[in-house]
Amino acid sequence: MKKIGVILSGCGVRDGSEIHEAVLTLLAIDNNGAKAVCFAPDVELDEVNHVTMQETGAKRKVLVEAARIARGEISDVKNAKAAELDAIVFPGGFGAAKNLCSFAAAGPQGSVQPDVLKLIREMAAAKKPICAICIAPAVIALALGKDLAPKLTIGNDPGTAQAIGATGATHVECPAVDCIVDRDNLIVSTPAYMLAGGIAEAGKGIEKAIKATLELIK
Amino acid sequence: MKKIGVILSGCGVRDGSEIHEAVLTLLAIDNNGAKAVCFAPDVELDEVNHVTMQETGAKRKVLVEAARIARGEISDVKNAKAAELDAIVFPGGFGAAKNLCSFAAAGPQGSVQPDVLKLIREMAAAKKPICAICIAPAVIALALGKDLAPKLTIGNDPGTAQAIGATGATHVECPAVDCIVDRDNLIVSTPAYMLAGGIAEAGKGIEKAIKATLELIK
Repeated sequence: MKKIGVILSGCGVRDGSEIHEAVLTLLAIDNNGAKAVCFAPDVELDEVNHVTMQETGAKRKVLVEAARIARGEISDVKNAKAAELDAIVFPGGFGAAKNLCSFAAAGPQGSVQPDVLKLIREMAAAKKPICAICIAPAVIALALGKDLAPKLTIGNDPGTAQAIGATGATHVECPAVDCIVDRDNLIVSTPAYMLAGGIAEAGKGIEKAIKATLELIK
Repeated sequence: MKKIGVILSGCGVRDGSEIHEAVLTLLAIDNNGAKAVCFAPDVELDEVNHVTMQETGAKRKVLVEAARIARGEISDVKNAKAAELDAIVFPGGFGAAKNLCSFAAAGPQGSVQPDVLKLIREMAAAKKPICAICIAPAVIALALGKDLAPKLTIGNDPGTAQAIGATGATHVECPAVDCIVDRDNLIVSTPAYMLAGGIAEAGKGIEKAIKATLELIK
């Protein structure tokens, strides 16, 4: 059974992983006969109250909150080994842009959390597929943009697309129900809630992206 | 478009709504052409660290945490009006048994949170369907067991089934991929993670339960 690493960034669209995208990722992996293995970095996040959508000033732990989505079955991403995984997937949410890298604050000048960066580089070097959902292609663009110039999508938001382009990656527009497959670099991306009007639409794109990712595994 | 109230109890299997079940509920509602409207009671919960699965001693707010699953679109359940909803659904998770009622501590002698109880009774009186997933049938059993003796399932766990039976409800065994429909009382239930071996299996039962719930709407 193929093992797919799912890299989470917390639990909630404004300070962590977008929950629907993360769950739809786990569903698509299971529905397509592969096994999801969840990881998150052991770093802090700035808590956002999801009723007011304001930061509270409090901190939470990314790994501990992400464990809610993973039902406790999660490991520190520093222990993830590319040799033991067939592919990796990054659900979106503001946590992807803020907790996995500094794209939210620094745009194309941002850097990637070291353990996450190491895993992405090892997977790319091993020619294993990487899938990124919603805003998570920004993490891949920061990690691999300069070296591999991957083709990626975050949907059609001009500002974000321009920032992705400034990393060295090439942004390609894509509707929510579809995905972009970069066959040279084995990178799959889908816009999900960057564009989707609802969960069913996001789900269609994610199902397509996970299927495409599994098909790229050698 | 049919409006389906989704009653959440937090965000995480051990202290709130089971996240997969809640998201699969929202997905099934959208996939079947209805509109989900999320609610939660404005009460406190006992925070559980989902890596260690131990209580931390800290409190969080059920409504504020549930807002993570609802992407901010959520209201206090005390403002839910049966007249404005076509059906209601309760995802599972330990929060259903602990934050929406006191089944976790008191079993068949437990009581239901007053705003949740009022909504359940109004929906039942109005002959509108109620769907309960995983352990959430315990909430319905406490609310309606004595008056309506509904047929319900939580899967096949003997202790829980016995406690459900002691409320006046009748427990019926059911596999994770199926659901029990009580056509007299318009109550649908499915075991989900009380039994399911994985998310795809839970998803099949939830999709079936939501379809059955929508079909019961007059």
